[in-house]
Amino acid sequence: METLETMRWVDGCLEILDQTLLPGKTQYIKCRQYTTVCEAIRRLSVRGAPAIGAAAAYGLALGAAALKPAGSEEFMAGVEQIARDLTATRPTAVNLQWAVDRMLGVLRDNITGGIEAAKEKLLAEAHAIYREDLESNRRMGQFGEKLIPHGAAILTHCNAGALATAGIGTALGVIRAAHQAGKNISVYADETRPLLQGARLTTWEMVQEQIPVTLLTDNMAGFLMARGKVDLVIVGADRIAANGDVANKIGTYGVAVLAKEHGLPFYVAAPMSTIDFNISGGHEIPIENRDEQEVTCFAGRRVAPEGVQVWNPAFDVTPARLVTAIITDRGVARPPYQESLAALAGK
Amino acid sequence: METLETMRWVDGCLEILDQTLLPGKTQYIKCRQYTTVCEAIRRLSVRGAPAIGAAAAYGLALGAAALKPAGSEEFMAGVEQIARDLTATRPTAVNLQWAVDRMLGVLRDNITGGIEAAKEKLLAEAHAIYREDLESNRRMGQFGEKLIPHGAAILTHCNAGALATAGIGTALGVIRAAHQAGKNISVYADETRPLLQGARLTTWEMVQEQIPVTLLTDNMAGFLMARGKVDLVIVGADRIAANGDVANKIGTYGVAVLAKEHGLPFYVAAPMSTIDFNISGGHEIPIENRDEQEVTCFAGRRVAPEGVQVWNPAFDVTPARLVTAIITDRGVARPPYQESLAALAGK
Repeated sequence: METLETMRWVDGCLEILDQTLLPGKTQYIKCRQYTTVCEAIRRLSVRGAPAIGAAAAYGLALGAAALKPAGSEEFMAGVEQIARDLTATRPTAVNLQWAVDRMLGVLRDNITGGIEAAKEKLLAEAHAIYREDLESNRRMGQFGEKLIPHGAAILTHCNAGALATAGIGTALGVIRAAHQAGKNISVYADETRPLLQGARLTTWEMVQEQIPVTLLTDNMAGFLMARGKVDLVIVGADRIAANGDVANKIGTYGVAVLAKEHGLPFYVAAPMSTIDFNISGGHEIPIENRDEQEVTCFAGRRVAPEGVQVWNPAFDVTPARLVTAIITDRGVARPPYQESLAALAGK
Repeated sequence: METLETMRWVDGCLEILDQTLLPGKTQYIKCRQYTTVCEAIRRLSVRGAPAIGAAAAYGLALGAAALKPAGSEEFMAGVEQIARDLTATRPTAVNLQWAVDRMLGVLRDNITGGIEAAKEKLLAEAHAIYREDLESNRRMGQFGEKLIPHGAAILTHCNAGALATAGIGTALGVIRAAHQAGKNISVYADETRPLLQGARLTTWEMVQEQIPVTLLTDNMAGFLMARGKVDLVIVGADRIAANGDVANKIGTYGVAVLAKEHGLPFYVAAPMSTIDFNISGGHEIPIENRDEQEVTCFAGRRVAPEGVQVWNPAFDVTPARLVTAIITDRGVARPPYQESLAALAGK
């Protein structure tokens, strides 16, 4: 695979691969201020729950480093404001909140050691979050690969790949692991409107890996299954409730209903940091609504007439009853998820 | 509504509204030769089962008029070749074959009266097919409107509107009739990838009529239903088998499965000419596969990487068991369709 990193830390600067330009163009955004990181998250230059978690951690470290507070109390207040700005960028993916909370915890634990030392601890923690995600991907791949039969045709939605994480990806990490295990798999990629992460990013990752991949529009998934061409579905997640309800890219729910109709396994791959034990069910997950121009325009050209209203939720919720298993970095959870997820978390 | 006609006959010329340019641009293609009609059908300048039936009838009349045969046998052979060229343009919509067969029947019945008289009969028959479709739409509207509750939120897929017919449309004809009956309805329009007939054409028709319309991407339909925002679904059809299986724009099947999952009525509106009593079930309906560039490119810009394979069926098949009722120009058919459709056809 072409050695492209979703993000990288170079000489005190976070460089974020601008995924809005892929696959046509490879360009990094140099973030020296945390506000540049906020903007990169908001406009989806970096996306995917684990990746925005790591980016936010680096953003917080960058923002903290730039503060010149009079004392530790002012420093703490300043960092907390940066944390609020970062978490406000996107509401659905819980990894963002998780990473920022973890960073604030590190700050609280180290604030007595002096401001400059705390700044260093924060950067070290961002590096740790990044490294851990990479390792988490690898483990999900190992656990998930065992669920993939030899020769399986796998449908995926959106991009839960290397570009959505620090490592090999969540759903695509499992696919990569199955491929590397010599299982002779093939992939069907939903294009994933409105922003085409499937067409632009997932197919690109698969082509790089020389894993056979076929692109389809989202509305073809049902007919593809009816024609017997799909063996299983695997997707990522942006937030998973304690009961196993899964928020993921808009369209995931429809694919899950179709999988049930055709008796196909529907797997979700996500690290433990995506599971939000603070909420009991999917109805509590905030769903981001994005700008209507994502739907009415394409490549700068307006396709819908003026005067039309638009509904543009970025995510949907798939109820736990439609999920065959959740592949985490600590093992595979099966229903009932209330118990199995808690057990994996050691709760 | 803006007085745009899907097609019109002006001074010996068939003018076809180029729907590939809508809603941005209103431009008619002047067809003086039947080959121009073939090309307009092939590239979807005119689309929708009833509309391509009418266009093909005019095309055959145009082609016949241009022939200078030595005798009636040569004339017949020439027209039959034109008929084959016209029906070869698109395989799925049966109205195309139906209209061409009807024209050939008229020719056979009138060939003894001389070639020039037969040419006039053919043009008259094309006009009749066009007028009958207009009237057929009106009747479908009347029958179908009774199925729409007051205040209903209606989801539709693709464009089964005025632009797909000679009149007010099939599915959108029912919606227009319900609106005119003062039922205070609203419409959700799937954008309908790859060619966006929903975003470009359906929303445009609804905005013109001042019927409230909300655009969504195809993959949002499931979540829209889960949120309780849809009361019923109504779509058109390209071919209906004798058992009630429905071929329609790709994505229709997925919407039908979702409607079933949410306990919503799923209606199909189509004239009797769309029902193919020669085939017993949907598995016999030929499904057109179209160019992969429809999926990999958008507005002339490539969105998917090189090296990716593409699956691009233009239609799918919805099994009769998912169809609540079929609204025809002779009344509403309910399951079992084998009997109810035959009864409407007087078989």
